[in-house]
Formats: sequence, C-alpha cells, structure tokens
Amino acid sequence: MNKYEERYNSLKARVDEKVNTFITKSLPETFYSPLKYALSGGGKRIRPMILLFSCEAAGGDFTSALDAAVAVELLHNFTLIHDDIMDNADKRRNIDTIHKKWDNNIAILAGDGLNALAYRSLLKTNSPRIEEITKVFTEGIIEVCEGQSYDKEFESRKNVSIEDYMLMINKKTAQLLVASAVIGVLIGGGDKEMIKTIEKYSENLGLAFQIQDDLFDIMADERTFGKKIGGDIREGKKTYLLIKALETINDPSDRAVLESIIQNQGLNKDEEILKVKHIYEKTGIVKSALSEIERYTLKADEYLNTLPDSEEKRQLQWFSGMLLNRSY
Amino acid sequence: MNKYEERYNSLKARVDEKVNTFITKSLPETFYSPLKYALSGGGKRIRPMILLFSCEAAGGDFTSALDAAVAVELLHNFTLIHDDIMDNADKRRNIDTIHKKWDNNIAILAGDGLNALAYRSLLKTNSPRIEEITKVFTEGIIEVCEGQSYDKEFESRKNVSIEDYMLMINKKTAQLLVASAVIGVLIGGGDKEMIKTIEKYSENLGLAFQIQDDLFDIMADERTFGKKIGGDIREGKKTYLLIKALETINDPSDRAVLESIIQNQGLNKDEEILKVKHIYEKTGIVKSALSEIERYTLKADEYLNTLPDSEEKRQLQWFSGMLLNRSY
Repeated sequence: MNKYEERYNSLKARVDEKVNTFITKSLPETFYSPLKYALSGGGKRIRPMILLFSCEAAGGDFTSALDAAVAVELLHNFTLIHDDIMDNADKRRNIDTIHKKWDNNIAILAGDGLNALAYRSLLKTNSPRIEEITKVFTEGIIEVCEGQSYDKEFESRKNVSIEDYMLMINKKTAQLLVASAVIGVLIGGGDKEMIKTIEKYSENLGLAFQIQDDLFDIMADERTFGKKIGGDIREGKKTYLLIKALETINDPSDRAVLESIIQNQGLNKDEEILKVKHIYEKTGIVKSALSEIERYTLKADEYLNTLPDSEEKRQLQWFSGMLLNRSY
Repeated sequence: MNKYEERYNSLKARVDEKVNTFITKSLPETFYSPLKYALSGGGKRIRPMILLFSCEAAGGDFTSALDAAVAVELLHNFTLIHDDIMDNADKRRNIDTIHKKWDNNIAILAGDGLNALAYRSLLKTNSPRIEEITKVFTEGIIEVCEGQSYDKEFESRKNVSIEDYMLMINKKTAQLLVASAVIGVLIGGGDKEMIKTIEKYSENLGLAFQIQDDLFDIMADERTFGKKIGGDIREGKKTYLLIKALETINDPSDRAVLESIIQNQGLNKDEEILKVKHIYEKTGIVKSALSEIERYTLKADEYLNTLPDSEEKRQLQWFSGMLLNRSY
C-alpha cells in the first residue's frame, strides 16, 4: 500500500465513523431505522473524500471539513434512495433498497430526512464562508434534480444525442462532485482561481466516472458488482453505450435488438442482455466508451496539473486515478 | 375591510407575485412544469405571512424578509407534494395533485426540487444572521419529516393517545410555523427574549390551527372546502376527533363504527362518513375540539400579549384571529 492509499484509508475511516454514527435518535422508528440502515452500507465515499482532499490541497486542515464531508455523503445517499424508488431498483450494494425493505412512503420520507440532515451537518462547519458553502451545496442539489429529470425523460424519448446525454450526466453525476470539491476548497481557504481549477478537474472526473459507470453496468462481474449486470438495459436507460450504438451501428439485425430496448422500455431476459453486451463488444462501442473515459480523465489531470506541485495535489491525483482505473 | 386586512392583502400580493414568478426556467420540462403548476395554486400563505409580520413586529422592514417568506412557502409546498403521494390524495385546492396529473416519480422530484429551491430563496436573504436563519429552517424541515412519520405510523397503530397526537401535530404542523416566525424575528433584528415569545405564540397557533384543520375535514362545506369532506376518515387517519372519540365514547354501536375506521384502514362510502360525522356531533366530540382550539388560541394570544404594544403586534394578533375564526 502506498502512502496515498494509506492516507485515503485513514481519512475514509474518519468519514465512515462519523457517517455510521450520525443518526442517534430512534423515534419515530419508521423514520430513523431506515436512515440507520441506509447509512450502514459503506462504499468508497467518493464525494466526502474529494471534499477532504480538496480542502487539504487548498491548504486547509481536513478536520475542519469533516462535517461538510458527512453532509455530501448524506446528500448522495438521499439521491440514491429517491432514485431507487424511481428506477424500481430492488438492490443497492448487495442489500435490499429502502422502498423494497419497507415501502415507497417510508423511502420518500427517508430521502427527505437525509437531505435535511445533510444541511444540519453542513451547517456545523465553522467557516467564515459558510453562506457561500451552503449556496454551492444548494445549487448542487438543484443540478442533481435537473439531471435526474433528464435521465427519466430520456427513457421515454426517441431521440437522445450524445450531447443530451453529456448534459444529463454532467448535472446528475458531475455537479455533485464539483460541489463537494468546491466546498473543500472554500473551507480550506483557496482563492477564486483555485476554485475554477478544481471545478473543471472534478467536472471532468465526474463525466469520466459516469461513462465508466455505464460501462460497468454491462461489463462488470456480477459477484464483485453486487447486483445483476444490465440494469440499465432492463430499465431502458439511455446510456452512453446505447446512444453511441444507435448513432453508429447500421447492421439491421443488431439495430433491431437495440431498438427493441427502447420500444419495449427495457429488456428483461438474461439472454437478451448478453446479446446486447455482445453487440457492444463486437462493434467497438465498448472501445469507444473506454476512449471517452480516457479523454475526460486526461482533461481532469490537465486541470489538476496547473496547480503548484504539493503532496496534497498528488493525493488528489492518486484519488482520481484510483477511481478511474477500476477493472471490470 | 380594516387596516390589518388591507395590510395583509397588500403584503400577500407581494408574496404571491414572487412565488408565482419564482420559476423562470423551462427545461427539463418534466421538472419545471410541475413546479410552476404547484406554485400557481394560491392559498392563504400562512407561513410567509407570519414570517413577514414577525419581522415587522421585531422592528424590521418586511422587504428584507421577502426571499425568506418565499422560501417557507416553497418548503410548505414541497411537503404538500410528498404528503399527497403518501396519502394517495387526488385533489388539492380543487385541482389534481402532481402525482395524479403526472406520476409518482415526477412528484417525488418536484418535491425534492422545491426543497432545494426553497434554500436558494432563503439564501438570498441579506442578513448578518443568515447562518442561524438557515439552521432554524433546516431544523424545521427535520421536525416536519418526524411529524409526517408519526402521522403515517399512527395510521396502522392501534393505540394512539391524545398526547401522541399532540406531539405529532406539533412536529408536522406547528414547527414550520415556529420556524417561519422565528426567521422573521431574526431578520427583523429581535432579541432572544422576543424569539422565545414568538416561538410559543406560533407553536400554540399551529396546534390550534391543526385541530381546526381536523375539524374542517369533516365539518366543512364541500364547495368552499375544495375537496370531499371526510378525507381523514377515508385514509384512516388518527385525527384529534377520532382519538378523542375512541377515548370517551362507550355506546357499543357508536364504538363499532369508530373501530371499523381503524380495522378497515379507512372507510370509503359517503354514508359511512356521514355516520361518523353524526357520532362526532351528538357525543360532544366536535364541542371538545372547538374548546381545544379555543384553549390553544388563548395561549397564543397570551404569549403575544407579553410583547410591548405596537401596530405590528396588533397586526399579528389580527392575523392569528383571522386564521382561527374561519367558519365551516
């Protein structure tokens, strides 16, 4: 384990501990039990970690950013709970989703509650820039809502371009990473120029990350993935892969398979999923996704490289590298 | 029309105008269309008005509190949208609810979005106490979530006491009025003592208001009420009336009717609703509700009366009187 991985593990343990013990109340039971369950899941804590590392890269002390780090993790979990209702998803990180284990009403309230608790945690932050921090956090939520709306709209829309798709994932995925990173810089005391740089870095990281997520959904190993592959195809989601395939594939029988995903608003049989996967592989769609992931990764790196060299900057570099070099 | 009513109408017009024009974006369409629809409804604007009048009572200028007033109205509308999903309510203020006109997913996102937009409006407030204001706002949302959870829990719980009920409505209804009023005082520059007084005033006003709401649900005239009476009975809700009736009524055939509301998780036929209404009338349950409304109203007035006399204080007095003297 190198020193960056060690530091990641050590700071992540601090975040985990704070997130896992965040809920102390028990009543009302139907409110706090699902919240404890939702926050016990773990994960890579991408948003809190980029916040903490950005704070350090701006010259700040990570301990002053821990409450904000918890806040972005709670916020992310709120969006997952509501997304899972909207997507009819039964599993998340190998365990039942909240609306599956309890019901839709309880999941709606759990999401609403986590959102408010996220603000509670954020507002514990002791910073002269707390007003600006809260604004960045709020605008991030609005972006995520807009992104999720586009995502759902695209499911029933015939023509969705790669450009539409990039706008959607920018809002749905990248902007919460941007908000997290910017809040880190604000707490750390960074200047306007650094905020701009970190904005661009985290935006490109987010775009690369989401295209990778689309790729994983179909190419992952189900055992390490924690759920069945092809969830996006089952839901009829317009992923990078499907949109790119519809734009480029001419073979009539391949096209018929792809168009049936849209016409049927998703395919359900495992053999259909495998057929789509095979089309993505043999026609270069997987390769095209990999090259887009690389392109946005390089862009993110370039922005980061404009910052003066420091251990803290290299920690951020290691972090984005770790996120984007996952094998599937 | 007296001068207090004139002032109410004039300030309310300012709030209406700001709320109705708050949404300027159009895309994504499935996000902003439902929001425009939700905010076109009107209503008495109770929360923004108590905020503005409290600001003035604390010596402030109401124009400095308009963004915060819009914020509490957006917040209230967010809770209505999500509550309507949870309660399967088809109508609100005589028009289709969002999940009915569109679908549950769109309504979930509309609520989430309004919550974030509420913070956006709140954070426009130019006040040295903006951090404290945002904390009060956030804690108000958590109270509302807890209250709504209790409300849903009570639907399937056998024994709910008047004490349980009061805790629930305090959180679900009163605490958002409290948050609104306190934010008004904070913006207006009131001191700690005034905050305490206004807290108690608005809490008691909120309790009286909710018991009155329960009473209206069964005693109102359907034409002015804007929806069918007896919604709470149809949903099997544990209202003040039902809980009080179950605590006090001994007649076996009356008890059987009341218990059937709970056993069947709500009654649906109009003649059953009328039977319950008749029981509430003849056994003094309606009278008991009226006397509780009066008790909390008087308490609210008492707290208000501890403030030094002023036109602004009399405006608040007129406002709570107007709210609680509605005829049904």
